[in-house]
Amino acid sequence: MRALAGGRRRRLRYNGAVIADLSSAVPMPPLEAPPNPILAVVTRNGLVESWHRGAVAVVHDGELVLQVGDAARPVFARSATKPMQALPFLERGLADRLHLPAEELAVMVASHDGAAEHTAAVRSLLARGGFDEAQLGCGPHAPFDQDSRLALLREGQRPGKVHNNCSGKHSGFLHLAAACGDDVAHYLDPHNHSQREVNAAVAAMAGLPGPLPTGLDGCGAPTFVMPLAALAQAFCRLANPGDQGPVRAAACRRIVAAAAAAPTLVAGAGRFCTALLRQWPGACFAKNGAEGVYAVALSPDPGRRRWPGALGLAIKIDCGNERGYQPVVVDLLHRLGALPAELPPALAAFHRLPVWNTQKLQVGTVHAVVSWDLR
Amino acid sequence: MRALAGGRRRRLRYNGAVIADLSSAVPMPPLEAPPNPILAVVTRNGLVESWHRGAVAVVHDGELVLQVGDAARPVFARSATKPMQALPFLERGLADRLHLPAEELAVMVASHDGAAEHTAAVRSLLARGGFDEAQLGCGPHAPFDQDSRLALLREGQRPGKVHNNCSGKHSGFLHLAAACGDDVAHYLDPHNHSQREVNAAVAAMAGLPGPLPTGLDGCGAPTFVMPLAALAQAFCRLANPGDQGPVRAAACRRIVAAAAAAPTLVAGAGRFCTALLRQWPGACFAKNGAEGVYAVALSPDPGRRRWPGALGLAIKIDCGNERGYQPVVVDLLHRLGALPAELPPALAAFHRLPVWNTQKLQVGTVHAVVSWDLR
Repeated sequence: MRALAGGRRRRLRYNGAVIADLSSAVPMPPLEAPPNPILAVVTRNGLVESWHRGAVAVVHDGELVLQVGDAARPVFARSATKPMQALPFLERGLADRLHLPAEELAVMVASHDGAAEHTAAVRSLLARGGFDEAQLGCGPHAPFDQDSRLALLREGQRPGKVHNNCSGKHSGFLHLAAACGDDVAHYLDPHNHSQREVNAAVAAMAGLPGPLPTGLDGCGAPTFVMPLAALAQAFCRLANPGDQGPVRAAACRRIVAAAAAAPTLVAGAGRFCTALLRQWPGACFAKNGAEGVYAVALSPDPGRRRWPGALGLAIKIDCGNERGYQPVVVDLLHRLGALPAELPPALAAFHRLPVWNTQKLQVGTVHAVVSWDLR
Repeated sequence: MRALAGGRRRRLRYNGAVIADLSSAVPMPPLEAPPNPILAVVTRNGLVESWHRGAVAVVHDGELVLQVGDAARPVFARSATKPMQALPFLERGLADRLHLPAEELAVMVASHDGAAEHTAAVRSLLARGGFDEAQLGCGPHAPFDQDSRLALLREGQRPGKVHNNCSGKHSGFLHLAAACGDDVAHYLDPHNHSQREVNAAVAAMAGLPGPLPTGLDGCGAPTFVMPLAALAQAFCRLANPGDQGPVRAAACRRIVAAAAAAPTLVAGAGRFCTALLRQWPGACFAKNGAEGVYAVALSPDPGRRRWPGALGLAIKIDCGNERGYQPVVVDLLHRLGALPAELPPALAAFHRLPVWNTQKLQVGTVHAVVSWDLR
């Protein structure tokens, strides 16, 4: 194996502004490290066709109770940190000042489908600060939601920035930048006041000393590098924020409540996140991140005999494919006693993901193959 | 790890007909086997974000000269076997009888983009036997080519079977079934005369005793299970079919010539296969298969000092992602001396695949990290 390029360009500039900053010490994942185990397989006619490796971390009441593979390896947490990135907005009282409905808070922490309900919520959220879509720093991409994508194309329209799955987060950042006195034209600069507040909130939730190193996310916002176990810790804290003081604790609870009130705003009608949010209304936050990242927060529940406290789960599929984590997350939640013995149909669909061919015949499944070592 | 489900339903039936048959002995890939090495990595701002593992086999003049990872592991070869699946059509003289132009032979061995040139060639190929699009057994899917996909949607049309990337192969199968006296309504049954001829041709090229076990491909055709090294052997034989008798050798040469004459028909203007075919006109066949499979045949060339004979390369990315093999294939071809020291721009673009974000900023690359052990 060759030594990997990288670790040199610690600060990346664009139009004079720093847009990514990895200058904090980030250990480079060793290429020769023991490989993470196989978490899920893809079958065809009963034979394994493809394999997905990865790592899992489970934090229970602040304690790392399970790691599969290398949970200390740093990952780009990508969109999984969105609930933490919204904390400064809430803690500055902006939600109350702007009379924000749950839908607009939900879309602020979403990787949304770009359907009509999402773009409407984002436009309303922008309008509350007199902002315009053109001020969004994220680039455009076609809506994830197929019907919305096709409708847009049939109307001869091009996808806009508002369709970007992160447009709610960016809208919140614009409000925050204005509240912090930043130049809103540079609201994505990781060194401005508002983004330093965001960085500090993410670091505190993850239990890490800040500032966290950041890379450039798909949408142009800073994305945070942290060990996978720290992401699980952040989600455990989201589920039970008691140690974060009353202001932050209230902000965490408001995010979980907004997601329960508007679960499709956080993702979309057929999406995995929305199915999980509906399973535990008001007691769950579930979030995907690009390149195979997923994290779940579950509030304390005495009904889970072995794990009655707050739970934070985080997973990274090494190859970056989301089909690798969906069955694994359901399998783990089942094993933790958070789901009934017989899986609810909405989650069973993700536990054994069907592989269809173009003739609409099922040729195989994607399913978990982990034997959870939970004593 | 749990024992995997599977290996039980050896014959899969649909509407009374066997559509997949794994009843030949196929060793189940052991889940606990040593993992294949990392072949490519995905970076973001200089840090590795994702990893792609896999196996590679290189056959030179019939001899396995390199294996990286487990090249003996059986894989579904998927669309990589399309040139071999077209051999019976040619060997029965159908191309001459039908006055087939190179474009229509090229589209018969293609995983095509569904652009206008592809659908026109497929429709012409069908018409030569009086066949109708409705007789195609493959299901519809949207064209891979973005412009064609958008144009179709803007016109309010739905993708048809003819847009399926395998529609050329299916059209050839219809002709072959008719020539063999099969009921063309069941031309995909692996037990009919024509598909047994196809199976025998694929097995002979791979140097394996037939019949090969088959699963159900994405398009509904039989897909063949074989060790990765046998796929490399089949491609080496395609590049130098001297040991296959004059009829088969002529058929192999005709496929390579058709791909050279119409390289966009085999894939599409921006596709990896087309770029490779253009690099060695008349001396190469390059083919993708779904779920991370790729194979290349290179004719003998004394200009390659260490490897002047016929070359067959095959690769399978464990997780099934095509971005994992493109840089690796270019890197390997370079290392084998088949490419100049300075890579041609058309292939350099696949050697370090840029990772873009929605702001059109390059945030990283996908690139090979293999140290080729070629003495």
